[in-house]
Order: sequence, then structure tokens, then C-alpha cells
Amino acid sequence: MKHLAFCFFLLIAHPLLSQKPVRQEPAFKVVPLGVLGGIDESNLSAYLVAAAGTNEYIGLDAGTIYAGIEKAIRNKVFNGAASDIIKKQISGYFISHAHLDHVAGLIMTSPNDSTKTIYALPSSMKLMQDHYFNGYTWANFGDAGKGYLIKQYHYQTLAAGEEIAVTQTGLKVTPYVLSHVHPFESTAFLVNNQGSYLLYLGDTGPDEVEQSNRLKQLWERVAPLIRAGTLRGIFIEVSYPNNQPHKKLFGHLTPAWLMKEMNVLAGLTGSKALKGLNVVITHGKPPMHKIAELQRELKANNPLGLNLIFPEQGKQIKL
Amino acid sequence: MKHLAFCFFLLIAHPLLSQKPVRQEPAFKVVPLGVLGGIDESNLSAYLVAAAGTNEYIGLDAGTIYAGIEKAIRNKVFNGAASDIIKKQISGYFISHAHLDHVAGLIMTSPNDSTKTIYALPSSMKLMQDHYFNGYTWANFGDAGKGYLIKQYHYQTLAAGEEIAVTQTGLKVTPYVLSHVHPFESTAFLVNNQGSYLLYLGDTGPDEVEQSNRLKQLWERVAPLIRAGTLRGIFIEVSYPNNQPHKKLFGHLTPAWLMKEMNVLAGLTGSKALKGLNVVITHGKPPMHKIAELQRELKANNPLGLNLIFPEQGKQIKL
Repeated sequence: MKHLAFCFFLLIAHPLLSQKPVRQEPAFKVVPLGVLGGIDESNLSAYLVAAAGTNEYIGLDAGTIYAGIEKAIRNKVFNGAASDIIKKQISGYFISHAHLDHVAGLIMTSPNDSTKTIYALPSSMKLMQDHYFNGYTWANFGDAGKGYLIKQYHYQTLAAGEEIAVTQTGLKVTPYVLSHVHPFESTAFLVNNQGSYLLYLGDTGPDEVEQSNRLKQLWERVAPLIRAGTLRGIFIEVSYPNNQPHKKLFGHLTPAWLMKEMNVLAGLTGSKALKGLNVVITHGKPPMHKIAELQRELKANNPLGLNLIFPEQGKQIKL
Repeated sequence: MKHLAFCFFLLIAHPLLSQKPVRQEPAFKVVPLGVLGGIDESNLSAYLVAAAGTNEYIGLDAGTIYAGIEKAIRNKVFNGAASDIIKKQISGYFISHAHLDHVAGLIMTSPNDSTKTIYALPSSMKLMQDHYFNGYTWANFGDAGKGYLIKQYHYQTLAAGEEIAVTQTGLKVTPYVLSHVHPFESTAFLVNNQGSYLLYLGDTGPDEVEQSNRLKQLWERVAPLIRAGTLRGIFIEVSYPNNQPHKKLFGHLTPAWLMKEMNVLAGLTGSKALKGLNVVITHGKPPMHKIAELQRELKANNPLGLNLIFPEQGKQIKL
């Protein structure tokens, strides 16, 4: 009787038999330091990512750093002083593009920062060096460019499609070019933690509007990871609700455009493969009622069954 | 007996006889939107100023706008939505210099702003046009410079020493050049409300360190106003405590350097004229314990009897 009960327990507990998905251990922890696509200086695009089980973060974009860390401390995600956490727990920043809402926090915290690396594609790195860290609008905290070089930051220019390892973090990162109001470039970063992946997209317009195939190429790159079950989540922007005029997208996505792009991805993976995929929606542009509107629209029209996640500043996400 | 008591009342109540200063009606209201000299993106130099009795503000610097307005709304200094207040109650921004901690809020709120004017000396205006509103790092919301001109902002270049009227506010403003790490320029703005004055200084080093006479010239300009009792207050920076090494001032003041400059001013006005003068201390640089230290040092060594005011974000000051 005892044995019978144990066999029955095995039967209902076995994941395949009970039809429940196998729950994976998290591979990444993410701390959003800023989640909005503009206006509010205290909450602009910036996401810290670490391999699960470690406290060595990389920053994906850097719109708001200090105020986001302060919020995370209030939420007990971090312990200690904000300036210490910035100095000791962030190894470097990957910048998707040089629009100020993606880099202001890095610039502002630079006088109190430690030695670290700034990673960007050549087009974005040039703008950083020409217009921010140039000795005029700000001291040049880097190791190349104009003015006196403070050399606190190493400027590491990236090559699209080439993976690089980030020392101390256990993470590897591959950049891919995005189109953000043609011909301006933005970047997607594919973060690799020992074969588990996280994809972060900076600002991007839809291929159809941008007259581009950058997103299609990116979907082709990550489709095998989705099929293999190793892509833990996609961070992608939805800046406006659907009533934003087509001609006023300014290189951004709406819920309808996101779902159109997700359908392109589904065409590569099969639509079942996207069911439950974590899709973290970034860069909503205030006013807040428009962000609430775009969130409603996303939830109301999600035939692929994506697991839509709306990140909050200073609240940890495990993926 | 009744008459005698009334005479006695007059005697103690008369301001000259009772030695109490005559209390003036406020001429200005000021709402600090950001008070720190760096690091925290949510609280950087920006001060709204209106003639008392009106709600038509000008901005003196624009490091943090949205997050500061939100704070002021929470403090019941403003009513309504932050984006409406920014659009409707701020007529224009006077920029002391183009370092990002003095302009980031203006850039960030620009996509949701109304038509208004940006005022700056030619050197600062050029940096704004070349490096921020340039069509690369940000759209050009102005009416001159590079890229597509959105023309939401009129760029009004100022001439040092020439007063201009700001329409709708009742205020007139005169800029004066300051030295902020020679040869870089910053600006002081003298705001005039029908013969009552407020002096706001952007970042500045001491004349002795800057090898300059910009501050001396400014003190000569305002000394007659102080003697006449029409200068309602001076907003001036103290970025570091006194233990900041002389060679690491980076164009800023310490408590000791401020008092040295105030002594130059006292030499022009007589030291009694400075007693009780409102001096609003701006731009303290985090960490916060250093700001507490410089505030203690200022209070401990104030032989002129200045009325030292430490502004708080979103809390109104009447002068």
C-alpha cells in the first residue's frame, strides 16, 4: 500500500505526466533601473543583468542609474549606499544608442564611478565621444576622443554579430544592429549565460516602417534558441499605443507593430514555441495614461500567448 | 491711562525703535526643481522663479524638470499634471552653461513641451546646438542649428550686461559672464521684478583660482542694490566641503571660498549691509554626508551674518 501511494505520487508529480511545464531554474536576474521612454529624468531606460547566483551586473543602457539604484535599495533589492553599488557591482555598460534618455545616468554618475568599460557599436560610440564625453559638455572620462582623457572608462567598440566575454560576470554579449529612424542605428544585445540567453533590444522601429530587415535578421538569429528552449526572455520596446499616427512613430513600436513582428518570429519557430515566452515591454512614453492604454492593448491582443511582463523600476525580475 | 498705554504700544511696536528689521513683502517666489550638483538624475540644478503673486515662471537652469515638478506637486506647491505645468507655467529657460547636469531636464521634457524660449550666452547656446539639439543625440527642437528644425524652442542668444524682458512674466533678466574652469564660461542671471532683484549664479570658481575678475565685477554690479535694500537674495553654489583639495575644485566653491568672495562683496557694501542677506546655497555634490559637512562649515563660519538658506527640491521659497 505504501509503495502504491508512492507510485501514485510519482505519477502526479512528474512534470511530463502532469502536463505542467518544467520549471527551469532562473539563469538571469534583472534589475530595471528605469523603464520609461522619456520625460521623467528619474526613470529612463536602464536594465542591470547578472547571471543568477552572482552580484556582478552589466548595464543594458544607462538612462537612469542613481535614482534607480536608490529605488532598488528602498525595495531591498540592494543593500548599502547607491554610490558603492554603482562602483562595485556594475562591471560595464552596453549602450544601444546615444540618445540621451539611454545614456544620461551613465554621464551623470561618472564623477563618482569606478573604472569600467563602455561597450557600443562604432556609430553609437562616436556620438558618445563627440557629444557627451568631449571635454565641453562633460569631462572626458574615457580613454579616447577629445579633450583631457580621464581614462576611468575604457571605450570598447563592438562588431555586430561578434560575441565578447565580460570579465568577472560570467556573461558573454553579442550585438546586432537595429534601425531606429533610418539611417540611424540602435542595437540589440544577446546576453549569454552558459547557454541560456536573454535578448535586449534598444529602440527600434518595425522593419516595414524602417524599410529594413534588421528585425527579421534578429528573429532568424534567435529562432533556434527559442526552439531549443534556451531563450529566457526578450526585452523589447513598445513606446506608444496603437492610435499613434503611422508617420509619428519616430522609430518606435506600438502593440500592433510588436505583434506583427512577433508573428514574423512565430513564422520561424512555429507559433507554439512562443507560447509562454517572456516578453518584457520597455520604453513606454508618458503620459502614464498612454502607457496604461498600450498595456491594455497588448493584453487584449496576444494570440501567441506571450508571457507579457511590464517591468517596474527597482523590482527584480528572474528569467 | 488708556492713551499712555497706547503710546507705550507704539513705542515697542515701531520697527525702528524696537530694532527689528522692516519685513518686506516677498517680490519673488522660487520653486527649486533640483538642488544637487550631480550624480542623482532626479534632483539636479533647476530653479523656477516667478514674480510674487503670479504663476508665470522662468527656469534658471534645467537639470531636472519633470521629477522636480512631481515632487512639488506632492508638496502641494503645484496642482495638476506635471506635463501641463511644464507646458503652461514655464515661459522659458535661462541656461547658465551647457554641462549636462544643468540642461538634462530641458532636453528630456522637450518632446512633451510647449513653444517657449531658451536663453543663453553665445558660448553656451553653441554647445546646446552642437551637442544636444543636433538631430543626432536628440531631435533639434529649436529654430537654428543642425538637422531638421522642429522650432518648438526659440533660441534667444543673450549679450552680457544687457537686460531683456521675458514676456508674460513681468520679469527682466540680465546675464553676466562667470568663469567655470578657465576658459569655459558660465553665467549669472540678475532677475528684476519692478526694481526688486534676485541674483542666480551658475557654477563658478573663485576669482583667485580662476585667475579671473568675473565675480569681482558681479559684486560691483550688485553692491548698489544691496545698499539700496533691493537685492532679495543670492543663489550661489558651494559644491564641496573645505577639505576638497585646491587642485580638485573643478571650477567650484567651498564654504571658505564662498566666504572669501562674500568678504569682497562686503568690502563694497560695508559688512553691515550683508547682515541677514538671503544667500541660497546650491549645487552641493553628493555623497550626502559631504553636503551635510559643507552646510555645517558654512553655519560655523558666517561672521557676516548672512541668512543661509539650504533649498529643498519642490519646496517653495519666498524672497
